[in-house]
Amino acid sequence: MIVPIELTQPATRRYDIRIEELPALRFDRKVAVVTNPTVAGLHKQRLLERIEAPQLEWIEVPDGEEYKTMETVLSILDRLFEAQFDRQSLLIAFGGGVIGDMTGFAASIYQRGIGFMQVPTTLLSQVDASVGGKTGVNNRFGKNLIGSFYQPEAVYIDPAFLETLPPREYAAGIAEVVKMAVMFDKEFFDFLSSHDLRDPEALKRMIARSVALKAEVVNQDEKEKGLRAVLNYGHTFGHVVENETGYSRYLHGEAVAIGMVMANELAVKLGLLNREEAEAIRELLERYDLPTSYPIQDVDEFYEHFFLDKKSAKGKIKFILPGGKIGTHVMRDDLDEAIVKEVLAQFGEGR
Amino acid sequence: MIVPIELTQPATRRYDIRIEELPALRFDRKVAVVTNPTVAGLHKQRLLERIEAPQLEWIEVPDGEEYKTMETVLSILDRLFEAQFDRQSLLIAFGGGVIGDMTGFAASIYQRGIGFMQVPTTLLSQVDASVGGKTGVNNRFGKNLIGSFYQPEAVYIDPAFLETLPPREYAAGIAEVVKMAVMFDKEFFDFLSSHDLRDPEALKRMIARSVALKAEVVNQDEKEKGLRAVLNYGHTFGHVVENETGYSRYLHGEAVAIGMVMANELAVKLGLLNREEAEAIRELLERYDLPTSYPIQDVDEFYEHFFLDKKSAKGKIKFILPGGKIGTHVMRDDLDEAIVKEVLAQFGEGR
Repeated sequence: MIVPIELTQPATRRYDIRIEELPALRFDRKVAVVTNPTVAGLHKQRLLERIEAPQLEWIEVPDGEEYKTMETVLSILDRLFEAQFDRQSLLIAFGGGVIGDMTGFAASIYQRGIGFMQVPTTLLSQVDASVGGKTGVNNRFGKNLIGSFYQPEAVYIDPAFLETLPPREYAAGIAEVVKMAVMFDKEFFDFLSSHDLRDPEALKRMIARSVALKAEVVNQDEKEKGLRAVLNYGHTFGHVVENETGYSRYLHGEAVAIGMVMANELAVKLGLLNREEAEAIRELLERYDLPTSYPIQDVDEFYEHFFLDKKSAKGKIKFILPGGKIGTHVMRDDLDEAIVKEVLAQFGEGR
Repeated sequence: MIVPIELTQPATRRYDIRIEELPALRFDRKVAVVTNPTVAGLHKQRLLERIEAPQLEWIEVPDGEEYKTMETVLSILDRLFEAQFDRQSLLIAFGGGVIGDMTGFAASIYQRGIGFMQVPTTLLSQVDASVGGKTGVNNRFGKNLIGSFYQPEAVYIDPAFLETLPPREYAAGIAEVVKMAVMFDKEFFDFLSSHDLRDPEALKRMIARSVALKAEVVNQDEKEKGLRAVLNYGHTFGHVVENETGYSRYLHGEAVAIGMVMANELAVKLGLLNREEAEAIRELLERYDLPTSYPIQDVDEFYEHFFLDKKSAKGKIKFILPGGKIGTHVMRDDLDEAIVKEVLAQFGEGR
């Protein structure tokens, strides 16, 4: 005997990403802001001035990727239980990608899911992490290995929060923007190359276009079964770089910059990108002092580390590369080990 | 500037609940069976005979509600990481409701979600817990407070597993079946009243109808925003009984039986059920030795405990009651405290 289950839910879930000065937000439900002491020290006042709620909890967790753990998420949940949050309550992620990932994850499992909003305060999280609904924490086996796909109710991107951002973190955000342009939009790449991206007007246009591109991708492939994998351009290599350097030497965006240069070298070798365009990408990255070289000590070991990635299903490495020129992309999982290692060897020579 | 996100996913997710002898299952991906020593001791052979997979992990967690914790779920995840499970891998929940809830939760957060299947081995989990996609664990604040909504790929219900089930657990499963009948289907209630539910043919029909009713409810309201709350008939009272007795004196289904009798008394007082029908329900429960009385020591304290429930949003208690007669239901969140306490006081007198 067979009983079919057919779950018909609203086919479309819709929410807005607003790029503007943070508006006044009035809620008629309990609200908890999750942040860290660094962000709180800089911006607590600016946020509190704008939030009104019958009960407001302020939850600070330690600052840093090393605290992006299940233990921290459980400590957030404990605070919510103590404050008797119910299924109508709301979390607000106020900080960078680490805060956003953990707050989203906490919201997704508190009483089987409550609402959350993103107020990202770093460039990286404004252009990338706050859009798309990936949540998660790290564990001893790797990064983001425990988590969920869970969409926020809204994302508020206020560029004013970036005024206090250290230049290195600013540049790390730009790396992800360059990634979007190289994969999807030549015109956008030209815009990035021809403007000072620290200028407020250019910054705002950069954020908006980057978010729109990412939104298009996520709209087509929320659960990363196809197109969304293109966002891993630079990441397949970058993750190995991060892993080999213990996640301490490079910011994530910096490792992605190195990873894009590595991917581009591979693309050049395969005839998927010409030398001039590869150099144009490198120059754009270097203009913001992003690293573009990395001395690979042991090519074989570097290659083995590709297989630690959770996207390397069934022993195949998926390389995301420019698809012939800037603004296009291709996924290749059929590359000869020898060719990849030849490219890696170039970096071993201190390229 | 506003960028809209519109997530269009397949409007319908479909899977089958099969009520039949467990068929041979062949997989071309890694599979982990999650179970406990009790179930393994009784049925390991029967399951292993039927599963074929390139890599099969056998994960046993301690038996009992007190181990339905985040720690146990994390220990399951660790085993999966050690066995290098990827996003294509599959979990099989093999046991009762506790195993199903934890395995589903583990599947929902491992690498942001992998597939899982249910092979329930108790009557309670066959007729109720394995259908509907609720997952979760307990913590010091209460039951099922951390979890997710996450649907399995398939549910295999093989009544042969029930042959070894202790009578008390069998009866606890019948309590949830009676709940479905009283809320939704007078004809089914008459069937239950007029058959020996230990007879294999009646058992199979009972499981099928119960699962079909639950499936209809879940199909209409996966995330418990409306109709699904009707499944809490008997639970609002039952949860308090469980809580007051430290989750040790009664099985969940037994507490639900007591809770239904309490809800019925309230319904009789409100003119929503006649005395004859209330007695017919009680008689059916007592035929399977289910408890139908509970000495309430302190009516005020019992009433206060209603507010610990995660469904009691914004300070209102939602009572699910028969809606005029057996086979119908009504939700009332406007009841006068005094009326509820009058009913509770009847039980205080040893009713």
